[in-house]
Amino acid sequence: MEYHIEKIRYRNGVIEIRYPIHKILFRGRSRYQDILVVESIFGKMLILDGVLQLTTYDEEIYHKALVSPTFKKGFKKILILGGGDGGAAYQLSLIDPDLDIDVVDIDPMVTEVVKKYIPEVYRDVFSLENINLINRDAFEYVREYNGKYDMVLGDLTDYRYEDQIGSDVNILYSIDYLNDVKRILNSDGVVTYHVGGVILDRENVIKIYNIFREVFKYVRIYGVYIPSFLDIWCYISGSDNPIKIGGEPIIYDVSQLLGL
Amino acid sequence: MEYHIEKIRYRNGVIEIRYPIHKILFRGRSRYQDILVVESIFGKMLILDGVLQLTTYDEEIYHKALVSPTFKKGFKKILILGGGDGGAAYQLSLIDPDLDIDVVDIDPMVTEVVKKYIPEVYRDVFSLENINLINRDAFEYVREYNGKYDMVLGDLTDYRYEDQIGSDVNILYSIDYLNDVKRILNSDGVVTYHVGGVILDRENVIKIYNIFREVFKYVRIYGVYIPSFLDIWCYISGSDNPIKIGGEPIIYDVSQLLGL
Repeated sequence: MEYHIEKIRYRNGVIEIRYPIHKILFRGRSRYQDILVVESIFGKMLILDGVLQLTTYDEEIYHKALVSPTFKKGFKKILILGGGDGGAAYQLSLIDPDLDIDVVDIDPMVTEVVKKYIPEVYRDVFSLENINLINRDAFEYVREYNGKYDMVLGDLTDYRYEDQIGSDVNILYSIDYLNDVKRILNSDGVVTYHVGGVILDRENVIKIYNIFREVFKYVRIYGVYIPSFLDIWCYISGSDNPIKIGGEPIIYDVSQLLGL
Repeated sequence: MEYHIEKIRYRNGVIEIRYPIHKILFRGRSRYQDILVVESIFGKMLILDGVLQLTTYDEEIYHKALVSPTFKKGFKKILILGGGDGGAAYQLSLIDPDLDIDVVDIDPMVTEVVKKYIPEVYRDVFSLENINLINRDAFEYVREYNGKYDMVLGDLTDYRYEDQIGSDVNILYSIDYLNDVKRILNSDGVVTYHVGGVILDRENVIKIYNIFREVFKYVRIYGVYIPSFLDIWCYISGSDNPIKIGGEPIIYDVSQLLGL
């Protein structure tokens, strides 16, 4: 049996989680990263640079929790940083099919691979007229953009422990970058990033929370259990207006997860 | 590096979780089971027959979630099935120090080992006059008991997949046994069992839920995230009166878990 292994630094050790792989559907390397699609016990898995990104089993939980709790009625124009798999844009289109959505993902190969091998997540969402895929570096895009968005969503690969000095990803979690993001945000707008597991990425989550607090007047953190990540996944929202977190808490309603 | 490995059947495969072990504190075999106490990243771990039972890192979350959400004001006399580590009895004593608590655990060696190696969980609770440890088979104890309890808590080792025909543990999850438990329950009383992870023990949880529904007029299921189990742990309550689940949902309050 082949496994996909997640190694997670936690306190003074490393937990390993071994997911059995039933079949490899795609393995390749883009200009930016290793891309792997496998069949496993949570359905299909997309794995980038060895780190699990999404599964067909529960990507809806993940993406809904990213886009909906801080969405405000009246929002029109949304920017998604990352999100080239289409899942976040799709969930937004369910909230309001007329939203103007820009998805800025550096790696077109992720989109191609998801389109071909995980169409149940891709859902052909970028063929819609008001959902635009822009293959650019999210850092440069925000720096050069002169308009305004109502909402900015960080659907990026995780902040990386090991690259403290400045990986291409980590810069998108910096105070400077978030100030740049704030510059292109309407005054009642909100920025929401997914930031990792409450337990398994604890230090990173706290670090990013504190970065948000440096940039925004109001910061909220919320979470939802993502089965395939085996953790309560955290989302951090920043705004200069008070943030209301919508949606129902589900920890006391596991009956839904069990189909009872 | 040595690991404690949890192998969890899930859908059509097995997930392995590998917890690094820093030090073995105790390893032995009682008449009933293998007992292991180790130092790991979640503090000390108690492992019975190769299955993680509790960690010092989060046993309070587990035990509080077992004893408090279905506790009703006015309850006086409580029976704990299993619970020889003292953790559940201790959490009950915090709710009301005058409760009359009987803990029926078959294996005195578990208590001895926890007393010596995990005193921060044991807390010398059985030296209190109104908390009684009874080293007997919980099956026989309930069958032969003639009094009444206000609350019965199942703090047992998990139902076992592989022993479909009748392991010593599985019988305590049977319709016949729960009818016996109901016989010694006051009419407004409640039975609450911990039953496993919402994801990782899904089939068992549903099975036990359905067993409770055969026995009790009202059945509720609730859950709480237990970090060291990497899952939302489920608790099932049965009663012939409507059950109110107390306590606060915590899924939207991860800030507490993060110490923010």
